[in-house]
Amino acid sequence: MARAWHLVSRPEALPTSDNFALRDIELPKLEDGQVHVRNLWLSVDPYMRGRMNESRSYIPPFQIDEPMDGGAIGEVVESRADGFAPGDLVSHFSGWRDEAVLPAKALTKIPDVGAKPETFLSVLGMPGATAYFGLLDAAQAKAGDTVFVSAAAGAVGSAVVQIAKAKGMTVVGSAGGKEKCEFVRSLGADAAIDYRAGPVLASLRDAAPDGIDVYFDNVGGDHLDAAFARARLNARFALCGMIAGYNSREPQQFRYIIRMIAMRVTMRGFLYGDYVSRLDEFYRDMGELMATGKVRSHETVFDGLEKAPDAFLGLFSGANTGKMLVRV
Amino acid sequence: MARAWHLVSRPEALPTSDNFALRDIELPKLEDGQVHVRNLWLSVDPYMRGRMNESRSYIPPFQIDEPMDGGAIGEVVESRADGFAPGDLVSHFSGWRDEAVLPAKALTKIPDVGAKPETFLSVLGMPGATAYFGLLDAAQAKAGDTVFVSAAAGAVGSAVVQIAKAKGMTVVGSAGGKEKCEFVRSLGADAAIDYRAGPVLASLRDAAPDGIDVYFDNVGGDHLDAAFARARLNARFALCGMIAGYNSREPQQFRYIIRMIAMRVTMRGFLYGDYVSRLDEFYRDMGELMATGKVRSHETVFDGLEKAPDAFLGLFSGANTGKMLVRV
Repeated sequence: MARAWHLVSRPEALPTSDNFALRDIELPKLEDGQVHVRNLWLSVDPYMRGRMNESRSYIPPFQIDEPMDGGAIGEVVESRADGFAPGDLVSHFSGWRDEAVLPAKALTKIPDVGAKPETFLSVLGMPGATAYFGLLDAAQAKAGDTVFVSAAAGAVGSAVVQIAKAKGMTVVGSAGGKEKCEFVRSLGADAAIDYRAGPVLASLRDAAPDGIDVYFDNVGGDHLDAAFARARLNARFALCGMIAGYNSREPQQFRYIIRMIAMRVTMRGFLYGDYVSRLDEFYRDMGELMATGKVRSHETVFDGLEKAPDAFLGLFSGANTGKMLVRV
Repeated sequence: MARAWHLVSRPEALPTSDNFALRDIELPKLEDGQVHVRNLWLSVDPYMRGRMNESRSYIPPFQIDEPMDGGAIGEVVESRADGFAPGDLVSHFSGWRDEAVLPAKALTKIPDVGAKPETFLSVLGMPGATAYFGLLDAAQAKAGDTVFVSAAAGAVGSAVVQIAKAKGMTVVGSAGGKEKCEFVRSLGADAAIDYRAGPVLASLRDAAPDGIDVYFDNVGGDHLDAAFARARLNARFALCGMIAGYNSREPQQFRYIIRMIAMRVTMRGFLYGDYVSRLDEFYRDMGELMATGKVRSHETVFDGLEKAPDAFLGLFSGANTGKMLVRV
């Protein structure tokens, strides 16, 4: 019997395991044009928190008592569709479960570029492309810039650090705790800020005494305010996420936002979805950066479908270094 | 004896008349290349509040016990410089005083375009150009957009309303009190919000039920948060000022800033100074809008040099409709 995680209640603040239930699901009989997939890897991502609220955002909310979904890598076990054969590795969006029957158009075959399959949920997948286009397009970062990136040990942040270094930028990354800061430095960052050790603003002043040209925001809150305070003339901020606010209904407080005027800061929200038409460009450039060893994939793996909610909740307590994945 | 207003102490929060003193000043003997000017009109502007703090911003702070300066229109009384003769009307930056001796290069002759001289401190001056380039360049506003502008009865805001209407946009302006809202509507705004009558967000929802494409911010605080809450896809925000924060050391609170991501909002700080190289374009277009009656100048006038601090303080209590000026 196949199984899938269901959302059984909407979290008010930080979700708990009570919000989720693993239930048997009936797989439909395979019909023409369809493929039966067994999942190998599931992605859990901070943006999924937004889908647990009732209100519609850029992506519809999860429905109560329905299976959840998200990025996944699977292996074809049976196919009644042209172009797919048993053993093929595919990426698709029916995660949070162990098996799925899907129309062929919902699947993308993973290209054989010498990368591990799970890399397509990490630096060669949505987090990597988010980092790539957020940094180079939304923030218009270029060689010589000083880039500040928050959650630099996370899936997106760790890709931002590596891409920025590969492109000739100076990078300051923030992360929680000594070990993660060590990891951020190992990615090539010029400096790492431990946001648990003291106020972000003071640390950023020390790490980038001449200020910052680019801020890649995954966090919001104190980090964003510190970036306002330290922005140089014509700085560009790309807003990717604000994990500090996902589980809170309190307003965020900014003491330095007014500096946006004097420093002519441009701040822009963006989504991965805005760039899917440019993925070829990403695969080409990122493939080369990986082939030359300038960018590597880093993952934290939870084993077993049963662990999917723990992996997801771990995103909010900082349990992951690099991309958080579930191995089914 | 010439007189000038001096800053005698730095205000902590809202300035008071105690922070200023009107003192005699010694005018230097007129030398070759210099012009003696008698001021007719002085400008007082919200940005001057920032110059009363000690910290350096995009413009140096006022010095304690030194004459203040700012935009002014004067008449030449004596000239030892080529190109200037008694009776010429000139604009310059030695305001907050009745007379000044200045090098010729500090003066600009007012062109004879049929406008009253004080218009060059208003819609044909810095506030008008700020409105023009902020709306059309920083916010990239275009025909068909729904534009929200705060402090819409003020010098910059009232110009934004008129330019936006002349360019085919739908305009919602906010102002404090019934009378000012009436004024905003008289400028052509499709709707006016009285921010003193209730929460800005609820009023904006009523006034622009489909949301806003552009926000021209003069205020920050609740207004900016309401704009975040009501931003449509790809909305553009131009940050011109945040008067709500000028006299406060408290952080500003934003509940809806996270919507910048889902709505891909671009927010940009800008200054008048960024556009001085494009003033020709402004004079051409704005001159035509004025000639055809689409844009008019509106001023609130305080009479007498003695009243300059009162006029300035009035900016923070909403004493002005249109541009606040001092007639010397």
